[in-house]
Amino acid sequence: MQANPATPADTRFRRLREKGSRDFGLACRIIDAARMGHVGFTLARQPYVMPMALARDDSRLLLHGSVASRLMKNLKAGTLCCVTVTHLDGMVLARSAFNSSMHYRSVMVFGSARAITEPAEKRRCLDVLTEHLLPGRLADLRPPTRKELNATLLLSLPLETFTAKVSDGPPDDPRQDLEAGIWAGVIPFHTVPGEPQPAPDLDPAIPLPDYLREAGFR
Amino acid sequence: MQANPATPADTRFRRLREKGSRDFGLACRIIDAARMGHVGFTLARQPYVMPMALARDDSRLLLHGSVASRLMKNLKAGTLCCVTVTHLDGMVLARSAFNSSMHYRSVMVFGSARAITEPAEKRRCLDVLTEHLLPGRLADLRPPTRKELNATLLLSLPLETFTAKVSDGPPDDPRQDLEAGIWAGVIPFHTVPGEPQPAPDLDPAIPLPDYLREAGFR
Repeated sequence: MQANPATPADTRFRRLREKGSRDFGLACRIIDAARMGHVGFTLARQPYVMPMALARDDSRLLLHGSVASRLMKNLKAGTLCCVTVTHLDGMVLARSAFNSSMHYRSVMVFGSARAITEPAEKRRCLDVLTEHLLPGRLADLRPPTRKELNATLLLSLPLETFTAKVSDGPPDDPRQDLEAGIWAGVIPFHTVPGEPQPAPDLDPAIPLPDYLREAGFR
Repeated sequence: MQANPATPADTRFRRLREKGSRDFGLACRIIDAARMGHVGFTLARQPYVMPMALARDDSRLLLHGSVASRLMKNLKAGTLCCVTVTHLDGMVLARSAFNSSMHYRSVMVFGSARAITEPAEKRRCLDVLTEHLLPGRLADLRPPTRKELNATLLLSLPLETFTAKVSDGPPDDPRQDLEAGIWAGVIPFHTVPGEPQPAPDLDPAIPLPDYLREAGFR
């Protein structure tokens, strides 16, 4: 009989690796639940990680920013990048610091972005972004002007090379730690909208739209 | 008299740049309010962005992971990295998609990480991490074993070269958009703890600790 060679560290690390998944549906669900991601790329050997709003259009990510941004220009030039979307869903309190961890859902997408420049397609994809960030909002807004479209750089990144990871479940303590009399379990985290704050220049006669009320924005 | 040359795009971009700050106190407050960051580095020309738990110890960031992790080893070797901490605080709903944006607080820290290996210092810094992630928890936990310490790679990154950015305030619409009759304002986001979920192997006689109850973990 072979002894189990796994130390707690081995076990935990193996578990995390096993959770790495190429499941396209899982990756889509994680991305669709997010409004932003962290975009990493290298410029003159220095890595940069920037928070950016994002949305998914079928099997690609959409990112946008100012045409004046040096970092956006660098992405547009096709440099290799990594876009990571993470939801921190809770803390896993084990009986030891070593076995404590986090609940999270995360996707890392690898590839090269390219600009979407064809006017009708650019317009459609910006609408996808707007509608993703706040469903229902798009119908309220005036169309973008040509000047605004020209000032906006829209990028797409194929959702082809990616790793999705989900860490969930209760703490996993070795038997000898169970008798310590310490509370153990999971503290979930939720992101919730607060009370809407009307703009100072908002006409008080304009009510809160239904799509905000219905989405739980009170 | 000179005409104002700023288009809406120019204005917005200038505003964001001006918000970039080297204010150490501001960077500390943003980091101290976070439990995780996104760590970017380059490996064989490919950028990676990984979510990692973090804490601040005076003027440096602390990161930790498994000694078995290829990516941690790469960081330990002193490769250039960027650690970005972001809080998405809300959505700014302007009268147009173009002027809509996000409330956020963010810090980008640039540099090279190094391993903390001196045993007493390593132990102290791991305690800083544990106590930061859940204040009050540390006193409940048994000390780490030597095996656990050896399985843990602890890294520090100086909080020296960084940019802190804060985006807040109401939407800023051009005058001609104000008459459109559209609701505008800010939807704040809050992260709140949910109901604690006791581990399946928890002795029901063990109550929820005060530090969880008092921290609003119900």
